[in-house]
Amino acid sequence: MQIAILLYDRFTALDAVGPYETLSRLPGAETVFVAERTGPVRNETGNLALTADRTLAEVPEPGIVVVPGGPGQSAQMTNGALLDWLRAADAGSEWTTSVCTGSLLLGAAGLLTGRSATSHWLALEQLRAHGAEPTGRRVVFDGKYVTAAGVSSGIDMGLALLGRIAGDDHARAVQLLTEYDPQPPYDSGSPQKAPAHLVAEFRGRSRFLLT
Amino acid sequence: MQIAILLYDRFTALDAVGPYETLSRLPGAETVFVAERTGPVRNETGNLALTADRTLAEVPEPGIVVVPGGPGQSAQMTNGALLDWLRAADAGSEWTTSVCTGSLLLGAAGLLTGRSATSHWLALEQLRAHGAEPTGRRVVFDGKYVTAAGVSSGIDMGLALLGRIAGDDHARAVQLLTEYDPQPPYDSGSPQKAPAHLVAEFRGRSRFLLT
Repeated sequence: MQIAILLYDRFTALDAVGPYETLSRLPGAETVFVAERTGPVRNETGNLALTADRTLAEVPEPGIVVVPGGPGQSAQMTNGALLDWLRAADAGSEWTTSVCTGSLLLGAAGLLTGRSATSHWLALEQLRAHGAEPTGRRVVFDGKYVTAAGVSSGIDMGLALLGRIAGDDHARAVQLLTEYDPQPPYDSGSPQKAPAHLVAEFRGRSRFLLT
Repeated sequence: MQIAILLYDRFTALDAVGPYETLSRLPGAETVFVAERTGPVRNETGNLALTADRTLAEVPEPGIVVVPGGPGQSAQMTNGALLDWLRAADAGSEWTTSVCTGSLLLGAAGLLTGRSATSHWLALEQLRAHGAEPTGRRVVFDGKYVTAAGVSSGIDMGLALLGRIAGDDHARAVQLLTEYDPQPPYDSGSPQKAPAHLVAEFRGRSRFLLT
């Protein structure tokens, strides 16, 4: 099984590395980071770069597609080469997945029409413009489409998908090996739980944060 | 405040990117990935590379040092150049931190003598050889030394340290922005919680996994 993780300028690093660290431990899987061009691809701050080892053209038929989000997503919404690749890769994939605003790219490629999906909480309503039904759940399975909420949720998505493919015991082993026994020092990880003033502040500048 | 995240051959990606995604959102911080040589540094599988933008010599006085772990850690335990840099960077740092088996590198540099610390659950007892007292806690503060348990625990460590430096409200904002509201699909993230046969299996091959 080939797992293709898409990179593009100004992606968010944990969106890509969360699913990477879990899903890539699928027995027999070959994980490859892909982008329009090979070489380093910078995240939204510019101070982190992951290497794309293959061009989109070199990975035409991945078994699993993973699309991270990040502030750079909006610039890709009209990138025909990228959207064409998403459509073609999806046509043969067993699973097509996203983290955070990556789901908006799946939507722009026309892949989420009539489906339930999720995204970063600040971007959730934008799914409707692509014919998808937003849900507030952290990980959403709808057929072969698996979307995760903001940034860190890709870890949960990766484990859940790993369990579906390789069985619960293997997913539990990966959870144990990555010591994923989360103990956040605060309970502020969703708009339902965070202090109201923080939620309001981010909603006020969401255009800045997400574009 | 300059934050230096150390890279070396065969590190584990999430060990580095977990703290990166939280800590680098410290107001005014400049985060830099450092290694002995600049350029791509491959993780333990070889299919992921993060770019080191600066050599060790170019980052002599970071305010925060972050040392990830991974299967490549053991080969660095006798790397004088890396250990010398750790000692020199630590001499001026405000915080010296690690994730997973990164704490064994801090130990090898002589920085954890007489201190409480943690590591990946499979490596915990190895801390004693460096004069440190292992604890089973997920994030351990001892003075300016902050060590985290396996792989994913660096996210919790990053948030906790962010709260100490920038205040609880800022850390809560970063938790909300990264939507860190973990909902693992299994409850198998520590040796106390995982099925006993998985714990036994990993203990049996821990030499293979960690070296």
